Amino acid sequence: MNIMKVIGIVGMPGSGKSEAADVARSMGIPVIVMGDVVRKEVADSGQKINSKTLRSMMIELRKKHGKGVVAERCLPKIRSYKSKDVVVVDGLRSLHEVEAFRLEIPDFTILVIHSSPKTRYDRLRERQRKDDPSSQEDFKTRDRLELRIGIGDVIALADIVVSNEANNLSSGKT
Amino acid sequence: MNIMKVIGIVGMPGSGKSEAADVARSMGIPVIVMGDVVRKEVADSGQKINSKTLRSMMIELRKKHGKGVVAERCLPKIRSYKSKDVVVVDGLRSLHEVEAFRLEIPDFTILVIHSSPKTRYDRLRERQRKDDPSSQEDFKTRDRLELRIGIGDVIALADIVVSNEANNLSSGKT
Repeated sequence: MNIMKVIGIVGMPGSGKSEAADVARSMGIPVIVMGDVVRKEVADSGQKINSKTLRSMMIELRKKHGKGVVAERCLPKIRSYKSKDVVVVDGLRSLHEVEAFRLEIPDFTILVIHSSPKTRYDRLRERQRKDDPSSQEDFKTRDRLELRIGIGDVIALADIVVSNEANNLSSGKT
Repeated sequence: MNIMKVIGIVGMPGSGKSEAADVARSMGIPVIVMGDVVRKEVADSGQKINSKTLRSMMIELRKKHGKGVVAERCLPKIRSYKSKDVVVVDGLRSLHEVEAFRLEIPDFTILVIHSSPKTRYDRLRERQRKDDPSSQEDFKTRDRLELRIGIGDVIALADIVVSNEANNLSSGKT
C-alpha cells in the first residue's frame, strides 16, 4: 500500500469519537467508519438497524470470520485511498482489529478520545440517539459490553490520548 | 470514613505513575502504594522480592481472597489518614479493586497516567530496574499480563486522564 499513515480512533460511548472524525473530515482526511461494515451486513440481511441487531451481527461476524473481521473488511476501502497521505479509521474495539490493521499498515497509530464516565453519560443522555442509554444502569451495561470486546486494551495501548471533557459535543452524529 | 476524596492512580508500566505519586507526596498528600501489600506478603513469606515472586503472590492473593483483595487491604491505611482531605492510592489494576474502594469511599476518583507504548518502552529501557524489560518481546509480554488482570478496563473508565509523553522521568523509583 502507498499510504503513509492510518490513524485508528478508539473511545468509549459518548467520548466524542465522531466529533474527532468530523475534525478529520473537515481537514479533507478520508474517514472510514468501522461500524458501517456491521451496519451494511445488517441492512443486507434485511433486518432493521438498531443497537440489538448491530450487536448480534457484530458478534456473529466475529464468530464466523475471526475477531479481526471488521478491520479486515475496512482494508479494501483504505487501499482505495492510496493517493492520500493520511486516512482515519473510526471505531476500533479490540487489539485483534489493531493487529489486523498493523499486518497491512506499518504506520498505524491509535488515537484515544477520552472522557470521564460522568461526561459521557451526560452527553449520551443529552443527545438521546435511539440506542443511547435511558438510565445509569443502561449506560454501565453498554460500557461493560464494550469492555468485554476488549476496547479497554486498545485504549491502554493507544499512541496518542486526547482528553475531551468540554461540553460542546453538539452534532450527536455517529 | 471522614475522608473527603481518594484518588486512585492507574497506568501501564512506564507511564509515570510513580512520578505522579511523587508530585502528590511533594504536596503533602499521603500516598498508599498498592504494590506494597503484595511486597509485604512476599517478604513475610520469606521469599526474595522480584517480579516473579510478586506476580505469583498477587495471583495467589487474588485466588484466595478475591480480586479486590489488594484494595481491601489498603482500606485500613486509608482510614488511618482520616484527618486528611485527600489520599492517593497508587497502582489500580482492575475494576474489582475500584469496586472494593467505592464500596467504602463514595468520592473515589480514577486518574490515569497515559503514555504511548513507544515512550513507555524507551523509559523502561532507560531506567533498567531489575524487573524492567530487556526486549520488545518482554515489554509486550508484561503489557499483556497487566491487561489480562483488567488494567485496560480501569483506564477506559478513568475520570481524569493525564498524558505524560515528556521524556523527563528521571527518578526511576517504584
